[in-house]
Amino acid sequence: MPELRQNILLKEWVIISTERSKRPDQLREEKVRCENAYPPYDENCPFCPGNEKKTGNDITLDGMNSESGWLIRVIPNKFPALMPPEDGFSVNTSGFFRSMDGIGHHEVLIEHPQHNLTIALYEPQHVARILHMYQKRMAHLLSFPYIESVILFRNHGSRAGASLVHPHSQIIALPVIPRDVMARMNESIRYHEEHRHCIFCKMLEEELSDGRRIVFESEYFVAFVPYAAFSPFAVWIFPRKHKSSFLYASEEEIDDLAITLRTVLQKLYYGLNDPDYNYIVRSAPQGYSHTAFFHWYITIVPRLTRSAGFELGSGMFINPSIPEENAAFLRDFAVPK
Amino acid sequence: MPELRQNILLKEWVIISTERSKRPDQLREEKVRCENAYPPYDENCPFCPGNEKKTGNDITLDGMNSESGWLIRVIPNKFPALMPPEDGFSVNTSGFFRSMDGIGHHEVLIEHPQHNLTIALYEPQHVARILHMYQKRMAHLLSFPYIESVILFRNHGSRAGASLVHPHSQIIALPVIPRDVMARMNESIRYHEEHRHCIFCKMLEEELSDGRRIVFESEYFVAFVPYAAFSPFAVWIFPRKHKSSFLYASEEEIDDLAITLRTVLQKLYYGLNDPDYNYIVRSAPQGYSHTAFFHWYITIVPRLTRSAGFELGSGMFINPSIPEENAAFLRDFAVPK
Repeated sequence: MPELRQNILLKEWVIISTERSKRPDQLREEKVRCENAYPPYDENCPFCPGNEKKTGNDITLDGMNSESGWLIRVIPNKFPALMPPEDGFSVNTSGFFRSMDGIGHHEVLIEHPQHNLTIALYEPQHVARILHMYQKRMAHLLSFPYIESVILFRNHGSRAGASLVHPHSQIIALPVIPRDVMARMNESIRYHEEHRHCIFCKMLEEELSDGRRIVFESEYFVAFVPYAAFSPFAVWIFPRKHKSSFLYASEEEIDDLAITLRTVLQKLYYGLNDPDYNYIVRSAPQGYSHTAFFHWYITIVPRLTRSAGFELGSGMFINPSIPEENAAFLRDFAVPK
Repeated sequence: MPELRQNILLKEWVIISTERSKRPDQLREEKVRCENAYPPYDENCPFCPGNEKKTGNDITLDGMNSESGWLIRVIPNKFPALMPPEDGFSVNTSGFFRSMDGIGHHEVLIEHPQHNLTIALYEPQHVARILHMYQKRMAHLLSFPYIESVILFRNHGSRAGASLVHPHSQIIALPVIPRDVMARMNESIRYHEEHRHCIFCKMLEEELSDGRRIVFESEYFVAFVPYAAFSPFAVWIFPRKHKSSFLYASEEEIDDLAITLRTVLQKLYYGLNDPDYNYIVRSAPQGYSHTAFFHWYITIVPRLTRSAGFELGSGMFINPSIPEENAAFLRDFAVPK
């Protein structure tokens, strides 16, 4: 019998489809992993060292004093979804239709000089360096008075929407708070009103006491497959300490997160053979960075299924796998040394 | 400058990305259209005539008295997302996590005996026959006391999630009302409270008076690219007469809808070279079938772009095309006789 499970952060039901259920080895990709599929350097890649002139001017760099040149570059997106306002901006709320200038920022963080790597293959210290840069850029972007929220994400592979192979993350700063972001906020406020504690802290407590969906634990973080996962092998990484914003993760927490994030992505990379994926840092929007109800976290979404008419029509998802089985597979999978 | 436009039915902003904007001919598919890519009959296809035993028993048939056998078959999905309850069903709302048995129905409507056709290629009378069958099945499924909403959709092509080539539609009957469906309902209630008329009727009036986004008009229907279209060449078909449920479209309206739907899909098929697409019949859920605020319609979504980390992280969409340009292209494109 299929099961409906509720994602309590969005109050949405997910269909856990036992009839369509696929075992982890059926979901394993048949492909060549990125480190073998591509060369370490591609002279035509605009993100490879030596081609710096092909992109916009650097916003910031990390590692320029090292022998090998830059370690991380942040540049403006060449085809930005949104652009900073030059001379104020206009909002049209007079007629039936609503519009505003597409103001905001769209940055690309080139994670590494080498063309064919990904987070799972970096040294932990390099992952930490990237996460510190995420914090710096997010703090900077949230300082603009017209910015209300920042979406920090990574696309790995073409099914995840990546148009360039060279490893990079993206940051889009928006002049609005998206509906889904606000829905999570409102639901966590409602839960806090009713129970007087954070719904995320409670979920973490429940996941730890149940244990079946835990993937990996470190000193400061817990990685688990959510109870009502939308799709196969989705993993959430929750900080154990309640903080609303990723900006306030301490140096120690960031170093620990680097190990947790890398370990989970290694389990996907080796265990499922480098599936395409997205991850998103879900941090509080403007004005909510110190609240008792919201708790930042990371969502990792391997792109192993496709959305079809049902998903577009309902907004609901059909997960053709069992979260407990997915978690057991990832938990037990030993990453090669 | 990019523009943010608000989808007023969901109160969500869409980024109309001028910097990434693609002309219609850049979005045209490089592929062989389905009528040429596949044979008219495939002996291995479970939906082709002669293989009826490979599927579940027919739920209903249309056209059995015609010379050529059945014209339309409705069968249970072999891998149903949801299943009818046998002996009642259980709901678990006691602990932190919420779940219920995955009860419901999942039907497949095989649209035509011929393997390599699609809606754009049927005779108008055959499209009308399919739409009448949609009505019958939806009415039947909404009659079960445990069903709260019905999602009726069509997946065309693998990018749209179709796993079989043979033309078919699907109907999933749910024991819940999805969050997005309810959000549209709530927004239309709010609009009605404030303005004392239907937000859909008002939108239709605005679209007709503006005219730039109109694709096709018939006696009873108007097809247009919505002002805040999520993705390139998305088209909505609105009935001119206010009715909350597709069930109450009259015989005459259905015959007229067949022409409108087929014409729009022909414009996509010939104009963009058979893009993969989904369409969804958005009709009122249980208990809302006669209201002043909700108005049924059809959404057609060509799958020309991919969702990436930004869409997953925000729930917002970036449309790399201009709705007015998309509409002009479709409006002006003459379908071959």
